[in-house]
Amino acid sequence: MSDLNSVLAHIDGDVDGALERLFELLRIRSISTDPAYAADCRACADWHVADLRSIGFEASARETPGHPIVVAHDRSAPGTSALFYGHYDVQPVDPIELWEKDPFDPMIETRADGSRAIRARGASDDKGQVMVFIEACRAWKAVTGKLPIPISILIEGEEESGGVNLPPFLAANAEELRADIGLICDTNMWDPATPAIQTMLRGLCGEEIIIHAADRDLHSGFYGSAAANPNRILARILSDLHDADGRVTLPGFYDGVPELPNSLRTEWDALNFDAAAFLGAIGLSVPAGEKGRSALEMIWSRPTCEINGMGGGYQGPGFKTVIPAIASAKVSFRLVFDQDPHAIRESFRAFVRARVPADCRVEFLEHGAGQAIRFPIEDAAFRKTRDALTAEWGKPAVFIGGGGSIPVTSELKKALGMDVVLAGFALEDDRIHSPNEKYDLHSFQKGVRSWARILDALAH
Amino acid sequence: MSDLNSVLAHIDGDVDGALERLFELLRIRSISTDPAYAADCRACADWHVADLRSIGFEASARETPGHPIVVAHDRSAPGTSALFYGHYDVQPVDPIELWEKDPFDPMIETRADGSRAIRARGASDDKGQVMVFIEACRAWKAVTGKLPIPISILIEGEEESGGVNLPPFLAANAEELRADIGLICDTNMWDPATPAIQTMLRGLCGEEIIIHAADRDLHSGFYGSAAANPNRILARILSDLHDADGRVTLPGFYDGVPELPNSLRTEWDALNFDAAAFLGAIGLSVPAGEKGRSALEMIWSRPTCEINGMGGGYQGPGFKTVIPAIASAKVSFRLVFDQDPHAIRESFRAFVRARVPADCRVEFLEHGAGQAIRFPIEDAAFRKTRDALTAEWGKPAVFIGGGGSIPVTSELKKALGMDVVLAGFALEDDRIHSPNEKYDLHSFQKGVRSWARILDALAH
Repeated sequence: MSDLNSVLAHIDGDVDGALERLFELLRIRSISTDPAYAADCRACADWHVADLRSIGFEASARETPGHPIVVAHDRSAPGTSALFYGHYDVQPVDPIELWEKDPFDPMIETRADGSRAIRARGASDDKGQVMVFIEACRAWKAVTGKLPIPISILIEGEEESGGVNLPPFLAANAEELRADIGLICDTNMWDPATPAIQTMLRGLCGEEIIIHAADRDLHSGFYGSAAANPNRILARILSDLHDADGRVTLPGFYDGVPELPNSLRTEWDALNFDAAAFLGAIGLSVPAGEKGRSALEMIWSRPTCEINGMGGGYQGPGFKTVIPAIASAKVSFRLVFDQDPHAIRESFRAFVRARVPADCRVEFLEHGAGQAIRFPIEDAAFRKTRDALTAEWGKPAVFIGGGGSIPVTSELKKALGMDVVLAGFALEDDRIHSPNEKYDLHSFQKGVRSWARILDALAH
Repeated sequence: MSDLNSVLAHIDGDVDGALERLFELLRIRSISTDPAYAADCRACADWHVADLRSIGFEASARETPGHPIVVAHDRSAPGTSALFYGHYDVQPVDPIELWEKDPFDPMIETRADGSRAIRARGASDDKGQVMVFIEACRAWKAVTGKLPIPISILIEGEEESGGVNLPPFLAANAEELRADIGLICDTNMWDPATPAIQTMLRGLCGEEIIIHAADRDLHSGFYGSAAANPNRILARILSDLHDADGRVTLPGFYDGVPELPNSLRTEWDALNFDAAAFLGAIGLSVPAGEKGRSALEMIWSRPTCEINGMGGGYQGPGFKTVIPAIASAKVSFRLVFDQDPHAIRESFRAFVRARVPADCRVEFLEHGAGQAIRFPIEDAAFRKTRDALTAEWGKPAVFIGGGGSIPVTSELKKALGMDVVLAGFALEDDRIHSPNEKYDLHSFQKGVRSWARILDALAH
C-alpha cells in the first residue's frame, strides 16, 4: 500500500476521533465582533496551539491589538512549502430564536435521506474547514511520521470582524510566514458532487455611517418637519446608492470593471447554473440585481453594494413618536477585478457627505477592505490540486468564481507575494452567517481525504 | 376672603403634600407600549382610583382589552358640567443611558438661576399635568366641601401606545361620560411667562411596515445583488416619501389642507416666534421641512411625515455581512384641517405595496389614527378659561395652534359631541418623550392655581 493509501485508510478509521476534536472546537463561543466574547476567542486560539503541538508543530498564539493569531510550523520535509490560512472566529448568532438548537452545542443530525450533518455555529465557516486540513496533517504524521511537504499554519481570529490586525501581522512576520503557495479551505464545492477551486474572488469594502442630527431625541409632534430627521437623511442616502436598473451610483464605482472575457463566459455557461432554483431555495423568485446580468455573473464577477444593517429611532414593540438624534447603517461593497477598495471608500464618503444637511454631521467607521483577486490557474499547484480533487471525488474539479470575499488572499499576495489555492468543501445550503449553520459529514470526511491527497500531490 | 382666594391660599400652603402625591405617581413605571409593564399600568390606575376616592369622587378602574381606564365622578354641584381627560401612561425611557438619574425616581432639581424642576419620566407628560387638575379639585373640596361645577374625570393608560381601546370605551359609556365641555391638561404654555389655550391640533396616523424578503438571513457575498435586500427596499420607500422641496409625495396627501387664513397668519406673526432659537436649542440651524414655509406654520398648520423608527439587519458592534430576511419602519403622519387619517393610511399602504418586488411581501401594523381638530374659540368656556389664565399669570393668555396630536380630542367630539379646552403648563424644554424629562415647579404650582381659577370661572 502506498503512503497515500495508508493515510486515507487511517483517516477512514479515525472519523470519530476527528469529530470529537472538531466538537471541542465548536463549543468555544469565538464571536470576534462582540467584545463580550474576547476570552472565548483567546480560548479558541489556545485550543489550536495545544492541538497543533500534539501533532508535532511548533505552535504559539501571537498577541495582536485584537484577538491572538495562531502560528505553527512543521518544515521538516523537503520540497514545495505551503502556508495554510484559516480562521477560528465565527459570526454572531442572532437572531438566536431562529436556531433549533444551541449554536455552540454541536451535534450530528441525520436527515430524511440518511445523510448526516454537523450542526453548530462555525461548523462550516470556518472551524470545520480548518479541521479537515489539520486532520489530513495529523493522518500523515500518524502513518508516516512526517508531513509530505513543509507546512506552516496561520489561524486568525478576526476574519468575521474586519480583520484589521492581520495585514500588519503579515507584514511584520513576512520572513517567517513566506511559502511557495498559500492554501485556504474556506470556500464551497460547485455542487454536492463536484469539487471546485475558486480562482476569482470578490474584494470587500465595509463602512459604517452614523448620522447625527439634533442633540437629543425629539417629539415628532413638536419638532417634526422643522427639525432634521436622521432616519430620513439616511434613507435618502441609502436609496440613492442604486439607480432604477440596479446599478451602483457612486462616482467611479465601475472603474476597473471590464466585461467578462468570452472564454470565461462560455465556461461558466457550461455549468448550467439554475438561477430559479438558487432563488427558490431561499423563498425568492425575482433577480434583484443589475438588469441584463445573469445571477451567476452578478455573484462572481460584478461588484455590488448591500445595506447589511440599518437602524434609527424606536424599534421596540408599539409606537413612539420620536425623531431620533442619530441613525446609522452598515454598508458593504463587493469588489471585482481592479476596483480599488480605498478609492471606493472615499467615493462613498463624499457621496454621503454631499447628502448630509449643513447642521447635521456624519461619522464614518471603517470595517475592512480587500481587493478582488484572480489566480494563475495554469501554475502547477493549481493543476496538481485539481487532479487530487478529481481523484478523490471521481468527478472533474472545476475552476470557479466566487461571490464572497476572503480579504486575506489579497493580503497574502501583497505581504508575502503568494498565490493561494482555494479548495473548500462547504455547500450552498450550509447557512453560514445564518441560524442553524451546518457542515455535511460527507464534506468533512472527504474534505480530510482531499487534503491528504493534495499534500501528496504537491510533494511530487 | 372669597372662596377662590381661600382656595388659592390653601393651594399655596399644600405644595409639599401635592408634590408628595405626584412623586408617588411618578414612581410607578407605567410604560404602556411595552407588555412587560402591564402590572405597573394597572398599579397606576389603582393609585388614581384610591386618590380620587379620598377626595370624594366615585371612582373605579374599568377593564378594557388593554390597560384599565380610570373613571371618576363628583356631580353634586349645579351648573356647567366638565369631563377632564388625562393619561397615566408614559413613553419608554430608552436610551436609558442618557438619563442622568433613574427616570422613575423623581426629585426636585435646582438650576443655576435658582428655579426648580421636577425630574422624572411623566413629570410633564402627563402625570404632572393631570395632578395639577386633581390638586385644584382637592383644594376646592378642602376649603368649600364641594366642587364649583359637576366634574367627571377619565384617565386612560394607552395614550402613548396608540390608544385603540379608548374610542370603543367612549362609545359604550357615552351617556355616563357626556358633559358640557371637555378639559385637558396635556399641552404647553406659549413661553414660560405666557399661558396658552391650544385651539388647533394636528391629527395623527401611525403605521408600521415590515418588509419580508428571503425566508432567512443570507450571506451578502453569496446572495448579494441577486437576492432582494429588504433594507434597500425599505430605504427606497422611505426616501420616496418626500420630494426635493420637502413635500410629502403620497397621492392625495394634501387634500383638505387649505392655506392659512390671513387673519390667523397675522395673529401668529405677532407671536414673533424665533425659529433660529427654536432650532438652536436642540443643536440644529437649518429648517428641514417644506421649502417656503415658516417653522411655526409647519408645526401648527402643515401636515408632516416622519420616520419614527427603522431597522433591519445587523446593528450590533462590529460588522456582519448579512442580507436580512426582514426590515421594518414606524412612520407617522401629522394631519391638519380636513385630512382624513384613514384615506392617508390607505394611500400610504398603496404607495408601499407599489414599491415591494413581486417575490417579497409587506405586512402593515396600524398604530392609531386621529383627525386634526379646531375648536370654537368664540364660545363662553374658551373665553372664561382665557380670562382665568390671564388673571393667574398677569399676562394675556393666547390662542395657539399645536404640533402634537391629542387623538382623544377628536374622539371626544365624535363620541360625546364635546368641544375641549386645552390648557396646559408644560414648556418647550420639558424633554417629553426624551431622556431627562422634567416639569417646572413653577408650572406645577401655578398650574394648580390656574385650574382652581378656571373651575371657578366656569361656575359663573
